[in-house]
Amino acid sequence: MFRALSRTVTHHMKEPVRVVVTGGSGQIAYSLLFRIASGSLFGDHQPVILQIHDLPQMQGALKGVVMELMDGAFPLLHGVIASDVASTVYADADYAFLVGSKPRGPGMERADLLKQNGEIFVQVGDSINRHSKKTIKVLVVGNPANTNCLIAQSNAPSIPKENFTAMTRLDHNRALWQVANHLNARVSDIGHLAVWGNHSPTMYPDLSHVTLKNNPIRSTLNNTWVDKEFVPEVQQRGTAIINARKASSAASAASAAVDHVRDWALGSHNRWVSMCVNSDLYNGEYGIPKGIIFSYPMVCANGAYELVRNLKIDDYSREKLNKTAEELLKEKEAVVHLLKN
Amino acid sequence: MFRALSRTVTHHMKEPVRVVVTGGSGQIAYSLLFRIASGSLFGDHQPVILQIHDLPQMQGALKGVVMELMDGAFPLLHGVIASDVASTVYADADYAFLVGSKPRGPGMERADLLKQNGEIFVQVGDSINRHSKKTIKVLVVGNPANTNCLIAQSNAPSIPKENFTAMTRLDHNRALWQVANHLNARVSDIGHLAVWGNHSPTMYPDLSHVTLKNNPIRSTLNNTWVDKEFVPEVQQRGTAIINARKASSAASAASAAVDHVRDWALGSHNRWVSMCVNSDLYNGEYGIPKGIIFSYPMVCANGAYELVRNLKIDDYSREKLNKTAEELLKEKEAVVHLLKN
Repeated sequence: MFRALSRTVTHHMKEPVRVVVTGGSGQIAYSLLFRIASGSLFGDHQPVILQIHDLPQMQGALKGVVMELMDGAFPLLHGVIASDVASTVYADADYAFLVGSKPRGPGMERADLLKQNGEIFVQVGDSINRHSKKTIKVLVVGNPANTNCLIAQSNAPSIPKENFTAMTRLDHNRALWQVANHLNARVSDIGHLAVWGNHSPTMYPDLSHVTLKNNPIRSTLNNTWVDKEFVPEVQQRGTAIINARKASSAASAASAAVDHVRDWALGSHNRWVSMCVNSDLYNGEYGIPKGIIFSYPMVCANGAYELVRNLKIDDYSREKLNKTAEELLKEKEAVVHLLKN
Repeated sequence: MFRALSRTVTHHMKEPVRVVVTGGSGQIAYSLLFRIASGSLFGDHQPVILQIHDLPQMQGALKGVVMELMDGAFPLLHGVIASDVASTVYADADYAFLVGSKPRGPGMERADLLKQNGEIFVQVGDSINRHSKKTIKVLVVGNPANTNCLIAQSNAPSIPKENFTAMTRLDHNRALWQVANHLNARVSDIGHLAVWGNHSPTMYPDLSHVTLKNNPIRSTLNNTWVDKEFVPEVQQRGTAIINARKASSAASAASAAVDHVRDWALGSHNRWVSMCVNSDLYNGEYGIPKGIIFSYPMVCANGAYELVRNLKIDDYSREKLNKTAEELLKEKEAVVHLLKN
C-alpha cells in the first residue's frame, strides 16, 4: 500500500470528499484521476481524497500514477491512497467510479465475460456495503456496466438502491455531438435527448423529443438519417475510435464519467442526461421489466436524479426499448447465482 | 485535413481563443487536449478552438483523438482543426503548446538530438512568424525544450521575444510537492520556490527563499536533505516515473503546461512560478549570460510575467546557476547555424 496524505488542516475549506477509482493503472483512470484532482468534478472549492484500487500485480504501475498525481501539485488534492486492499480503498467513500473490469479476451463468450466480471462485482458490492458511507454515490463504468452494477448493488443491501448507477453518458454525449454536427449547431444548444437501455450495441439513442435551443426539431430530421446514420453511428462509435487510435476510448469515457457524477452531485440545471439505474425504482414505467439496470432520461437536482416522466413512446421506440430490455434480462439470467436479493 | 467546426454564433459568449497543440497524437497531448477542452485552462466562460498538429503518418490516430474530443460534448469547445499543414494549424493562433518533438533514439548523441529537433523548431518558428497572431503566447514542452524554444523564437522575428517560453513548471510542481511532503504540509502552503536554468538534469530547484504559509523556512531545513535528497529527487523524478509506469510522465506534464499558460494568461496571484525565457530580456541579471532560454522565478499578472528581482544568490546557488547556464551555452553552440538573429 502506498499512502501519501498531507495532514495540515485548513479550516476555511470544505471537508474533503473521498472518491474511489478502480482500475487505477488503466487508461480511463489515467484521464479520470487528473480531471478529478484538478477540480473538474466538484469545482474549485471542494478538496478530494483519491482512493485508488488496482490488482496486486498492478501496484508498481499504480505507484507511478500516484507519483504523477503528487507532481501535479493540485491544491484540491488533499490525499491519495493507492492499494489492492478493499477495506482500505472503500473506507468511508463518498463516491466510487468503478472503472476496473476484466476485458473480453479472444474467443471468450459473452456469458464467460458476464460471469468473470460478475465475480469481481460481487466483491466490490460487498466491500462498499461493509466499508463505505451509506450515502455513497456509485458509478459503474467497467463493462458489461449495467449487469456489473446490478451485481454490485444486490451485494450491497445496506446502501439505498438508487445510489448505484451505470454509465451511458458517453453514448449520450456522442449522440449530442452527432446531432449538433448534423445541424451545424453547438452541443450546448441540443437538448431533450435520451439514451435508453443497455450500454451495449442494443442501446437506443432516442431523438423523439430532441430540441435545438429548446424548440422541438424531430419532425425536421430525415428518418433515414436517424435510422441508418445517427443510430448506428452512436452505437458503433467505440469501434470507429479503436480503428483510428488503435486504442479504445479513454479520455472521452473519463470525461463522460466526470459529467455523470458532477451532474448527479451538483445538478444538471434542467438539462436531460442519461443514467442507468434499477428499473425497480420506477415500477415498470415505460414498460421496462423490473430488476434490471436500465438507462433512462433523467434530470438531476439537489444531489439526486429524477426520471423524466410522461414521454410518449411511439412504435419505433417501443421496439427498440423492448430489444434492449430483453438483452438485459438475458444478461441477468447468466449471473442470477451472483445476485443476493 | 480533418475539420470539425460548429458555426452557430452565440453572441453573449466571449470570442473563442485559438490554441495550437503539436504532437497531437502523443500521450501528453492526449491529456492536455481534454484539460483545455473542459475549461481547465481558461475557466468556464472562455470558448476555445483547438488547432492540432501532427505528422502526416499520424493523421489517422489524430482523427481518433478528434473523434473523442467531439464525443466529450464540451460546451466550450467551439471547434477543432487537425492537420499536418503548418499554415492551417498556426493560422491566427493566440496560444501554442509546442509538445511535439523527436525523442532521443537508442545510441543517439545529444548533439544529434539537438540538431534534429532544431530543424523541426526552425519550421515551427517560421510558421508562427508567418501565420499566428503577433500577440501569440508560446510554450515549448518538447525536449530539449529550452534550446528548441530559442530556435523557434529566433525564427519568428516578428513576434516579441517575451512571447516565447519553455517549461520548467513540471519541475517546479515536483519540487513544491517534495517540500510539502517533507513538511507534512499542503502544496498550496509552500511558496517562493524557484527552478533555475535548463529543463535537464542540471536544473537547479532552489529552496533559498522557500516559505511555509509565507514564513521563510530554509534555515529549518537540513542541508543534507536539500542537497542529497531533495535536489536529486526533483532532477531524477522523470526517470523514477518511467521505471514505475513503464511510460514517461504525460498527465503531470500536461497539467504543468496548463498551469504555466493559465498563470501567464490569468495571473499567478503573487505566487512564484518558474518559467524559461530569453535571458536577453533581463540584461545579465543574476549573472546569467545573454541569449539563452533560462528558467527564472516569475510572478504573473495582467497577461505578462515579471522576473522576481533582488534575490540574494549564495555561493551554493551561484555554482548551480553557472553549471546550468554553461550547459545551455553549449546546447546553443550545437545549433547556432539554425539561429537567425
